[in-house]
Amino acid sequence: MRQIVNALGRALPEYIEGYGIVRPFNGAFATLPAMTRQAPKVKRMQPGECKLADSLEMVFKRIPVTDGMTLSFHHHLRNGDHVVNMVLAVAAKLGLKNLKVALSSVFPVHAPMVDHMQAGVVTGLDTNYMSGSVAAAISRGVLAQPVILRTHGGRARAIECGQLKIDVAFIAAPTADDYGNLNGISGPAACGSLGYAYPDAEYADWVVAVTDHLVEYPLTPVSIPQTRVDYIVTVESIGDPQGIVSGTTQITRDPVGLKIAETTAKVIQAAGLIKDGFSFQTGAGGASLAAAHYVRQMMEKAGVTGSFVLGGITGYMVEMLAKGLFRRLIDVQGFDLAAVRSLAENPNHMEVGADFYASPFNNGCAVNKLDAVVLGATEFDIDFNVNVVTGSDGVIMGGSGGHSDAAAGAKVTIVVANLLRGRLPVIMDKVLTATTPGETVDVLVTERGVAVNPRRTDLKEKLAAAGLPLRDAIELKALAEKIAGVPNKIATDERIIAVIEYRDGTIIDVVRKV
Amino acid sequence: MRQIVNALGRALPEYIEGYGIVRPFNGAFATLPAMTRQAPKVKRMQPGECKLADSLEMVFKRIPVTDGMTLSFHHHLRNGDHVVNMVLAVAAKLGLKNLKVALSSVFPVHAPMVDHMQAGVVTGLDTNYMSGSVAAAISRGVLAQPVILRTHGGRARAIECGQLKIDVAFIAAPTADDYGNLNGISGPAACGSLGYAYPDAEYADWVVAVTDHLVEYPLTPVSIPQTRVDYIVTVESIGDPQGIVSGTTQITRDPVGLKIAETTAKVIQAAGLIKDGFSFQTGAGGASLAAAHYVRQMMEKAGVTGSFVLGGITGYMVEMLAKGLFRRLIDVQGFDLAAVRSLAENPNHMEVGADFYASPFNNGCAVNKLDAVVLGATEFDIDFNVNVVTGSDGVIMGGSGGHSDAAAGAKVTIVVANLLRGRLPVIMDKVLTATTPGETVDVLVTERGVAVNPRRTDLKEKLAAAGLPLRDAIELKALAEKIAGVPNKIATDERIIAVIEYRDGTIIDVVRKV
Repeated sequence: MRQIVNALGRALPEYIEGYGIVRPFNGAFATLPAMTRQAPKVKRMQPGECKLADSLEMVFKRIPVTDGMTLSFHHHLRNGDHVVNMVLAVAAKLGLKNLKVALSSVFPVHAPMVDHMQAGVVTGLDTNYMSGSVAAAISRGVLAQPVILRTHGGRARAIECGQLKIDVAFIAAPTADDYGNLNGISGPAACGSLGYAYPDAEYADWVVAVTDHLVEYPLTPVSIPQTRVDYIVTVESIGDPQGIVSGTTQITRDPVGLKIAETTAKVIQAAGLIKDGFSFQTGAGGASLAAAHYVRQMMEKAGVTGSFVLGGITGYMVEMLAKGLFRRLIDVQGFDLAAVRSLAENPNHMEVGADFYASPFNNGCAVNKLDAVVLGATEFDIDFNVNVVTGSDGVIMGGSGGHSDAAAGAKVTIVVANLLRGRLPVIMDKVLTATTPGETVDVLVTERGVAVNPRRTDLKEKLAAAGLPLRDAIELKALAEKIAGVPNKIATDERIIAVIEYRDGTIIDVVRKV
Repeated sequence: MRQIVNALGRALPEYIEGYGIVRPFNGAFATLPAMTRQAPKVKRMQPGECKLADSLEMVFKRIPVTDGMTLSFHHHLRNGDHVVNMVLAVAAKLGLKNLKVALSSVFPVHAPMVDHMQAGVVTGLDTNYMSGSVAAAISRGVLAQPVILRTHGGRARAIECGQLKIDVAFIAAPTADDYGNLNGISGPAACGSLGYAYPDAEYADWVVAVTDHLVEYPLTPVSIPQTRVDYIVTVESIGDPQGIVSGTTQITRDPVGLKIAETTAKVIQAAGLIKDGFSFQTGAGGASLAAAHYVRQMMEKAGVTGSFVLGGITGYMVEMLAKGLFRRLIDVQGFDLAAVRSLAENPNHMEVGADFYASPFNNGCAVNKLDAVVLGATEFDIDFNVNVVTGSDGVIMGGSGGHSDAAAGAKVTIVVANLLRGRLPVIMDKVLTATTPGETVDVLVTERGVAVNPRRTDLKEKLAAAGLPLRDAIELKALAEKIAGVPNKIATDERIIAVIEYRDGTIIDVVRKV
């Protein structure tokens, strides 16, 4: 197979079996759409027709679900999800083969999928993030076809643009009415926003709601409307609340993490962003929350009112909204009970779909309006490229999620990382797997100094003026290697186990079997 | 031209110049969709790009708007609308010709459109209702091509199914942010729901928001999202509040109207519908409100809680929601200030698009869930067909709006009419213009008796048991003719000035020039 080289210098085959023709990554903003939106078949539902189905099996037969179809799922029930396993068990029971699973993120709870992969029930996977035994099994090569790893915005784009064609979307619905209006804010498995399921509901050929909480028509608010739902199946339980939402998320107590967080806040301040209208995204981890905490103190001190917080929402953001530090929360996913309650009660807490959040191919997604985003990294390189897909051992242990999307959209993108991860340097010449391109990353904050992307001379001047401890990325790399030595190169074979799509649908990298 | 005859016995040409091939009406539930959804071109909006345009003229040039395009508009600003006239004035100034206007309803304020029609700027019109000088001019034959008259649900269907292809949607937006999130609940021209603009925003090739109230990003709630809006133009005023919403809508004091209203409520009661979960639609006119008032008294007496009120919303419905008589309002259009305020404040007051309200071609619209609807008629015939398009003189003075949609969806469809309209019988052998087919109409209530559609023997038995004054439609017709005589037949020529599409896209009738 002839190889091509993309804009990050990654060698790729021209064609990947099980994926198709490779369009090489060509720069974060270079690829323009040249297609029309996915156009599913138009439906008709006569007055009096009933959408309630007795069982998943009945729905499989009515549609009918056949070999080779793509079944999609959202991940809002996270590690408490019962629906994916339930649906795939029916598929296995009915003897279906060669199904492709399009699940926005894969969690440890989805371990039974490995058996279905081994049995040939599931032979394809399309996801934005994966962890647990499915990720491990795929890294070992359980799937003949490579898994397709997308970003949260890229998945929405792929669905809307017809590149990820969904035959049947199974939508876990914490609350539903009998005509298919769905939301996530109440019911025993309440999860908050259903944002990642919006594109599936809009563009799948068939939409099946799976619920354990059927209420009187009409349900309000409507996250997914009746006009797109074909069937409703009631089951005993769609998910385990313990695994769906955490009680509260805590700010880190690790002194190194706190130092990095404080420096991060100072970077945001030095960039001149702590002013009225400030908009912000950060993760739900303890270190990210710590950064939010320092930013909040600065906002309070300066008396500024921010515009919005975006992305995955935690109780900490809910508190900032309630205290008037920000005017809005834009919520594509809630992480804790406080986020679920706030979405239900506060009209300034907006629920949006993955397309609104982060798709690069529409009339403007919310990440485009971000001032600052704070992101993590498992590897970082001197060209500012980030790896959040593979660990230092080359095994898949994550995925972009909204990483590349927010990085591309925000005015200032900050990656935070300890210089060492375990006993290995985080910073290197070339990340093993490129996930987020360096041109969209502005600043690296470590406990030993701050590196600014050479493209951002404007920002570098501001941070220098503010007295931040600036270093070249190459210096930071040398510092890390001085402590931990130069890591051995990972040996991989030729077999591609994952294709990493950048948010615009070009291929930024592939993962080869270790 | 060979003629064909549709299921109501109406003779139609096989092909109508300016419309296309005629698909004859074949029964209200007989036509199934056989197409995919309209698939507009996918867009990209880079971070930092600005959507604000200095003027409509600039937007016309940037898109660019060219001869022969279809420009769409919603009618939520009713007789206070400034936007249609503003946009067409720019089109005229730029020398554009042969534009088609797709405006969900035409009001007297749109009179300047007649000049644009005479000048050849506008040569096509697609609407659901029209009144004022545009309707009069079209009846006189100002347009070479026939106007296409649709239902509210049918317009949504035609847009979603690609039969009404919109090049540019101009959306009058009472409030907008700088990235194109729009709603109708605040601003000087607040009109409430923007439901009729939803399909336009979703499927037009270009979407231009026109606003006089630009607020900080992000606007909540979002009726039309940023992901679909290309440009935002700020103008001095999008509409005159006096013409947009009425202060309050009053119940009729006419004793005949009150009698009909009371009988109507008794029909609903006798049909066994006054029980928990009752759902209801009625118009905003004084007689319809009176029917709602009698229904309300029955509900209060029986202590029942209704499910929802649907359609155009008035202060009277708002009051019933506030008092707990209904659990929800499903609002595609607000008629008065109370409706606007309630939509802004009450989470049980839902805003929905025209597709959710009434499109026959999706996975189930809200009219399908209606128990009872009360509708008007300008003519009614012994086969229960209704005319709401032409007056007794054959001149266009209305349109279906949601008439045919609600009639098709509701369990019990009641048409109310005085036996005489002016000095002419309302009931006749054949309505001049068939708008809503008799198979979807169950009961006619007049001041001289109640006629039940012979198809509904079940209903007839119930109404008889309740002691309602039942009469055959033929008897009522005879009664009317005894008072007023047999009206002269209207003389029309061959020229077709309007094509009346049933909600499913088949042709139920045409209007010929008087």
